[in-house]
Amino acid sequence: MAHLGARITELRQGFVEIRASYRPELTQQHDYFHAGVSGAIADSACGYAAYSLMPADSSVLTVEYKINLLAPAAGEELIARAKVVRSGKTLKVCSAEVYARKDGTETHCATMLATIMCLPGKPDRAG
Amino acid sequence: MAHLGARITELRQGFVEIRASYRPELTQQHDYFHAGVSGAIADSACGYAAYSLMPADSSVLTVEYKINLLAPAAGEELIARAKVVRSGKTLKVCSAEVYARKDGTETHCATMLATIMCLPGKPDRAG
Amino acid sequence: MAHLGARITELRQGFVEIRASYRPELTQQHDYFHAGVSGAIADSACGYAAYSLMPADSSVLTVEYKINLLAPAAGEELIARAKVVRSGKTLKVCSAEVYARKDGTETHCATMLATIMCLPGKPDRAG
Amino acid sequence: MAHLGARITELRQGFVEIRASYRPELTQQHDYFHAGVSGAIADSACGYAAYSLMPADSSVLTVEYKINLLAPAAGEELIARAKVVRSGKTLKVCSAEVYARKDGTETHCATMLATIMCLPGKPDRAG
Repeated sequence: MAHLGARITELRQGFVEIRASYRPELTQQHDYFHAGVSGAIADSACGYAAYSLMPADSSVLTVEYKINLLAPAAGEELIARAKVVRSGKTLKVCSAEVYARKDGTETHCATMLATIMCLPGKPDRAG
Repeated sequence: MAHLGARITELRQGFVEIRASYRPELTQQHDYFHAGVSGAIADSACGYAAYSLMPADSSVLTVEYKINLLAPAAGEELIARAKVVRSGKTLKVCSAEVYARKDGTETHCATMLATIMCLPGKPDRAG
Repeated sequence: MAHLGARITELRQGFVEIRASYRPELTQQHDYFHAGVSGAIADSACGYAAYSLMPADSSVLTVEYKINLLAPAAGEELIARAKVVRSGKTLKVCSAEVYARKDGTETHCATMLATIMCLPGKPDRAG
Repeated sequence: MAHLGARITELRQGFVEIRASYRPELTQQHDYFHAGVSGAIADSACGYAAYSLMPADSSVLTVEYKINLLAPAAGEELIARAKVVRSGKTLKVCSAEVYARKDGTETHCATMLATIMCLPGKPDRAG
């Protein structure tokens, strides 16, 4: 996350927003954010959203996710907003939407559906 | 890809292997490769596998993928092997397996199923 | 769809609701709707939602979908509500939520993310 | 499963084959098996493959699956073959391939990647 220049900009029970600012090394040809960056910050947002509903000594582990890439991620900032769709004791199902902000306008560029596992009392393995 | 230190190590019709060597900035706590790196190189491998079956002037676009994370990706190298499962004219369905190599032994750490779109005669948007 | 006793109960541009009433043959042990029924009506709802944004002579084809099963589907009716998340010319990305209604209360029992293909001017292959 | 006329035709540790014979009510226009049938038997095959590696008093629950539909499922029999890709204590990751057999030839018509949960000592909820 630090490597991506990403930071949590909103956090409440079952919801997280993460933002990553434009950096040349996160982009591919044509100055788009690489799809891998969308996937990484959406996955992280899902993990933190799940974690916000877990006991304090828990750790999170991404079991799996699916992402649909909807539009090129062009802009000065990439924003992932994740929420917990279902909060089971062991598994949390989360969804995340990724937007690229350019000149004040947000474009919806990816949507994710993820399964996150809660490991009670174990050291963090998935950050 | 360059940013991840990833390189294509095998390429034939409908099959691609990509390897990324250990770098401190690709890892999280405990010296594991970050899950985002597995996702990124598996996605790239699927894209190149699809591209290997397309006309020369085509470009590839990842429509969507799903990844299951199977084991922590610890080791000195991460390897993604992708193949085309079905090659339609517009869409290629690809699968990829990701392995972490440590002391000569490979551990299966992720599996991906992806849908790649072929854009004939357009400049590359997804590299 | 007829086989499942399913029917479209709401239809507007980019949105469809489908309902299936309880039938003994759609359930498994414990009188739950079988997960396959949730998958089938959510997939159909995504297909119709996509179709609502296509030219009249188009046909739809489900490329792929992912479904998370959130809770047992117990009740007298199963309801799938699908919307188009992104409407490209060739591909529509749709999401669907499935609810089981019991004694007037809806329980969220599944969530789907699907990719639907538009085949212009071809006979229907995916209904 | 009974409703689909499906039956287990092979079962060993970590592998299951399920077959469903042609029935008019399982097909849509053009005498293809409905995509929902492919999804249902592939999901069941994944569940049984996972179950084959669990303690006897366990039950299985499908957490989620993704399916790519590769080709129309035309023929006299639909065959799903599932294997366990990773067998964790709580979660099993399974893959399944679906084939339609027609005049002795099998066509690959769907591929699935699924996450199955093991519930130790609980009554079956997902059969």
